[in-house]
Amino acid sequence: MNIPIIKPILEESDALGRSNKELFDKHNVFTVNLMSSPGSGKTALLEVTIPKLVELKKNSAVIQGDITSTLDSERMAHLGIQVVQANTEPFGGDCHIGSHLIRSAVDHFDLDSLDFLFIENVGNLVCPAEFYLGEHLRTVVLSLTEGAEKPLKYPLMFRECNVCLINKIDLAPHLDVKVDDVITNIRKINANMDIFPISSKTGEGINLWIEYLLNK
Amino acid sequence: MNIPIIKPILEESDALGRSNKELFDKHNVFTVNLMSSPGSGKTALLEVTIPKLVELKKNSAVIQGDITSTLDSERMAHLGIQVVQANTEPFGGDCHIGSHLIRSAVDHFDLDSLDFLFIENVGNLVCPAEFYLGEHLRTVVLSLTEGAEKPLKYPLMFRECNVCLINKIDLAPHLDVKVDDVITNIRKINANMDIFPISSKTGEGINLWIEYLLNK
Repeated sequence: MNIPIIKPILEESDALGRSNKELFDKHNVFTVNLMSSPGSGKTALLEVTIPKLVELKKNSAVIQGDITSTLDSERMAHLGIQVVQANTEPFGGDCHIGSHLIRSAVDHFDLDSLDFLFIENVGNLVCPAEFYLGEHLRTVVLSLTEGAEKPLKYPLMFRECNVCLINKIDLAPHLDVKVDDVITNIRKINANMDIFPISSKTGEGINLWIEYLLNK
Repeated sequence: MNIPIIKPILEESDALGRSNKELFDKHNVFTVNLMSSPGSGKTALLEVTIPKLVELKKNSAVIQGDITSTLDSERMAHLGIQVVQANTEPFGGDCHIGSHLIRSAVDHFDLDSLDFLFIENVGNLVCPAEFYLGEHLRTVVLSLTEGAEKPLKYPLMFRECNVCLINKIDLAPHLDVKVDDVITNIRKINANMDIFPISSKTGEGINLWIEYLLNK
């Protein structure tokens, strides 16, 4: 029963994603889709990433995806950048951002003034992986506190993403989780994934991530 | 377009949930649906909860919900209890357990020998909240590492659950998150929620949780 319903929705969603991509390419905006479990530190990552890009004369905007609330977009507004909140309410709230929401959000930006557009997806390690939004880079943020076996248990996300940021490595001394074990498990799912162990709190690894973005 | 499709599925799912509940009641099995983000510590919680219940002559079984892999059910099997792995593959994997999966899993148990049945849902703070499985207690596990604002950002889960376990409080000295702030935010969404700050690692708060289960 599901298949004939879901298929056209996904096809329509993908087509709109491709049209978003054309728009980003036309205006030379590099777009990053940030996905993760709730509380892995996507917003904190943007709070350290965007000011570093500003120092390098690169302008960013953010589409803040949430089910409800404007908590995260308020944090972004403090950075003095263009931000659009994309909420997925009602009906409990959609568990991912769709390409149609991106299309509506983009109308609020002056794309020609931008170098980077970050899409902070709804916190969910499952569903967002299935939806192409038109992004150039699919990034999964994994908090070290979530444990080493997450790539094995949520393989689609790790298969579909280009890069994994292993966040909160500052907590490593207090956890029974090793960064190397996380990397080993990521490699079992996606041998080509680019991996950066980072801490948004201490700044460790952030410069390598910025360099990576600039080279893309 | 969505509404006429989703509604009958949800109605059918709820009806099967109610029939599961009748079965649990008939056999005097108290059923707990454990929900959370990936890596909040549901499995570790069961690893400390179930042996404590065994000490008190209470028998438990576990339905282990995952998209893929048997990693968690292997951890449960070490406890010497009845466990059924319920995987939601294929198509990227369903992001929640459905009541039909519970119905199939229950056939593998000797229900008359059980006092408690724990359902460890797929790690997802969004979708599982929408699906009633027939459980007596809806429990959300929130890791302190996920931050204080999660109840405000994922309100359906906190509205739909009876109890919240705030886990990993042993990490509090290393985080910029206060247990009291989490509790304040939970209260804004669900004034009646029962709340237990715990650490599966140190055992803090676990006895109160066990007492709570026994009184239910």
